[in-house]
Amino acid sequence: MPLTANDPKRKTWLDVPANSDFPIQNIPFGVFLTRDDIITIGTRIGDYAIDLGALHQLGYFKGIDLTDDIFLQDSLNDFIADGRKTWRLVRNRISDIFLEGNDELKNNKEHCNHILFTMEEVEMQLPVDVGDYTDFYASKEHATNVGSLFRDPENALLPNWLRIPIGYHGRSSSIVPSGTPIRRPIGQTMPGDDGVPGFGPSQLLDFELEMAFITTDSNPLGKRVPIGEAEDYIFGLVLFNDWSARDIQAWEYVPLGPFLGKNFASTISPWIVTLDALEPFRTDGPKQDPEPLPYLQHGKNKNFDIKLQAGIKPSGGEETIVANSNFKYMYWSMAQQLTHHTVNGCNVRSGDMMGSGTISGPTKDSFGSMLELTWRGQNPIKLKDGSERKFINDGDTVIMRGYCEKDGLRIGFGKCSGKVLPARPF
Amino acid sequence: MPLTANDPKRKTWLDVPANSDFPIQNIPFGVFLTRDDIITIGTRIGDYAIDLGALHQLGYFKGIDLTDDIFLQDSLNDFIADGRKTWRLVRNRISDIFLEGNDELKNNKEHCNHILFTMEEVEMQLPVDVGDYTDFYASKEHATNVGSLFRDPENALLPNWLRIPIGYHGRSSSIVPSGTPIRRPIGQTMPGDDGVPGFGPSQLLDFELEMAFITTDSNPLGKRVPIGEAEDYIFGLVLFNDWSARDIQAWEYVPLGPFLGKNFASTISPWIVTLDALEPFRTDGPKQDPEPLPYLQHGKNKNFDIKLQAGIKPSGGEETIVANSNFKYMYWSMAQQLTHHTVNGCNVRSGDMMGSGTISGPTKDSFGSMLELTWRGQNPIKLKDGSERKFINDGDTVIMRGYCEKDGLRIGFGKCSGKVLPARPF
Repeated sequence: MPLTANDPKRKTWLDVPANSDFPIQNIPFGVFLTRDDIITIGTRIGDYAIDLGALHQLGYFKGIDLTDDIFLQDSLNDFIADGRKTWRLVRNRISDIFLEGNDELKNNKEHCNHILFTMEEVEMQLPVDVGDYTDFYASKEHATNVGSLFRDPENALLPNWLRIPIGYHGRSSSIVPSGTPIRRPIGQTMPGDDGVPGFGPSQLLDFELEMAFITTDSNPLGKRVPIGEAEDYIFGLVLFNDWSARDIQAWEYVPLGPFLGKNFASTISPWIVTLDALEPFRTDGPKQDPEPLPYLQHGKNKNFDIKLQAGIKPSGGEETIVANSNFKYMYWSMAQQLTHHTVNGCNVRSGDMMGSGTISGPTKDSFGSMLELTWRGQNPIKLKDGSERKFINDGDTVIMRGYCEKDGLRIGFGKCSGKVLPARPF
Repeated sequence: MPLTANDPKRKTWLDVPANSDFPIQNIPFGVFLTRDDIITIGTRIGDYAIDLGALHQLGYFKGIDLTDDIFLQDSLNDFIADGRKTWRLVRNRISDIFLEGNDELKNNKEHCNHILFTMEEVEMQLPVDVGDYTDFYASKEHATNVGSLFRDPENALLPNWLRIPIGYHGRSSSIVPSGTPIRRPIGQTMPGDDGVPGFGPSQLLDFELEMAFITTDSNPLGKRVPIGEAEDYIFGLVLFNDWSARDIQAWEYVPLGPFLGKNFASTISPWIVTLDALEPFRTDGPKQDPEPLPYLQHGKNKNFDIKLQAGIKPSGGEETIVANSNFKYMYWSMAQQLTHHTVNGCNVRSGDMMGSGTISGPTKDSFGSMLELTWRGQNPIKLKDGSERKFINDGDTVIMRGYCEKDGLRIGFGKCSGKVLPARPF
């Protein structure tokens, strides 16, 4: 099926600000509350939120095999379960409805009134009901940095890392949409000289600059996803801040991995940008040496060139960009991650989320966490207001952004932000 | 509210076989398909499955605040979300309906026909839609055994273990009800002399004898559950086989914990036995030394005396019991686990499941996994048919059972079983 909606020459009859993340070539999917407090599935063009539930009720998706209430839901799970062919038909149709020169909807003021909202009029929700969330550890630079800081700089990368897309299960219940305040966690930390663990608010609260992909039903229990089919099961991507309390994590994580150091909150951007929309931005990943085992081997162009950025905005102050990275740095591709995840027969369902792990690049300003950027606090970062940060302070808002750009076409993700509130008194 | 249903003198007008796990004092909750292929929530007395959806429609729960369709669901999540007061009212009412001397239902053949099934007529389903599944590591003997086998016998127990109820997140999608066949997983294993990882069907497939508790909505994100309230949020327990592929696990688990070595399947028993039904079987846990931090301190009697057993039944052969353990061996209680899980503000929802970790006792026959029972294959176990087992063979069925017994009252869990199928050819 042709990806008509990707044609860079397409223009829309809606106003789109210059440099918008959401031109007519994007057409992401999300869930929002309308001004009438109705929850619906929608898309976004420029600064307009578009109610797909209303569009469908008014007959604009005629000819596409969709249930009547497919968009009148509080999550995209069922729509995603409809599969890639349906996503493409819907995305192409939306692109046609809003195409410059198509006046059918444009001239119907009553319909426009039902369908179009400004972004200020809607409240974005979680786009999916995440059944299972897995976080990978797929940036070689990040794994090397963390290995140096937490373990042994001489043997920073563990022997399994170059063979396996290492991953672990995370907590679904505490995934929240951008804008949700984050409460500083309390917990146990390394014992002092008296041998008694510390206990109190985390002193080393960090972000992790990640992306995450959302899957459709990929395989029943006991079957696996071959590497050549893996991308067929990826609906799209979001920005992802995997908040981390480094002091809680350091004390608890041996031998079963991170737990309370991570599961107090994870923030995602509310619009899922489809893999289809990202098609023009494919690129090669880093060279894999040693060669992966056969079940993980695939051709070129399985990475995506997505510029990533993290900033810190102190309460009432100005934002300082502290990290500039890129999704293309991932050593293990999304296809390799999904294939590895299912090689043992583990089933993957519609709405499951798989995080990339922190995406750090080769240069010091491209590291994706404060742990790495300040080298565990040794080199504090100066913010525009003159204050310094080793980690994240109460009142700070961490803001992540991501976009692709090529030949004048920009496809972006909007923002993934969260403000840190002080720990709740014990 | 009095736990009337627990009175050991109560008898039912239904036939209950001697030594049944399901006397009228049990009243567990589950989900089943009826002979008419209708899915419903039910309970069990003796060998009768009782359709609570039909009971409710016929007016037997009059006076209890329940929505009309609360039992006409494919999971117990909504009922569990109604909270402890409602569970108790419903359990007491069921106990009254089937009490010897109460002829209201007994004499209504038409109603009986709608409500009562033999266990052969129904097909048990997963009782809950598990949102998040966490597995703890709460048996000191198990943690010590695994530490000796995988790491260092001299320092088997890691320093954090005596301070923290160590846990990690598992996979919800691959939790299956008793009776579901288990496909032997394929995966990467430790490299040989050539440095290249092994790849193929797991050669060290194991069971883990566990129990798991099911929660109700315990706390919103950012709040915590105080230790004194933790048990109020525990609906009940199931038997739990945390299938483990030891060779896959050993290669992948550093530093982020078990992943594909576990997430190919986890089996639970289909009837959730309520914490209320287990009330008569409270007992003290092992002495905790050092004293836990204050947020984890609670009074006595927070463990439960539940006899646990695991057996192996070769294809076409007879079952051999290979392990006899007890849930009371848990070093960290369920209350401590739930409180620790939420101390950082992590939210817990209705239908979440928390596993105990393998429950091993102090004696060699009470170890809860083949890894420990055979000491990683060094001491194979002889089965009744003369064959030996280091780990689990294709065609073997692993069967777990659990029950409490005191003063002539027996409350049990039925069976948690799964047959191992050969790996799917690659």
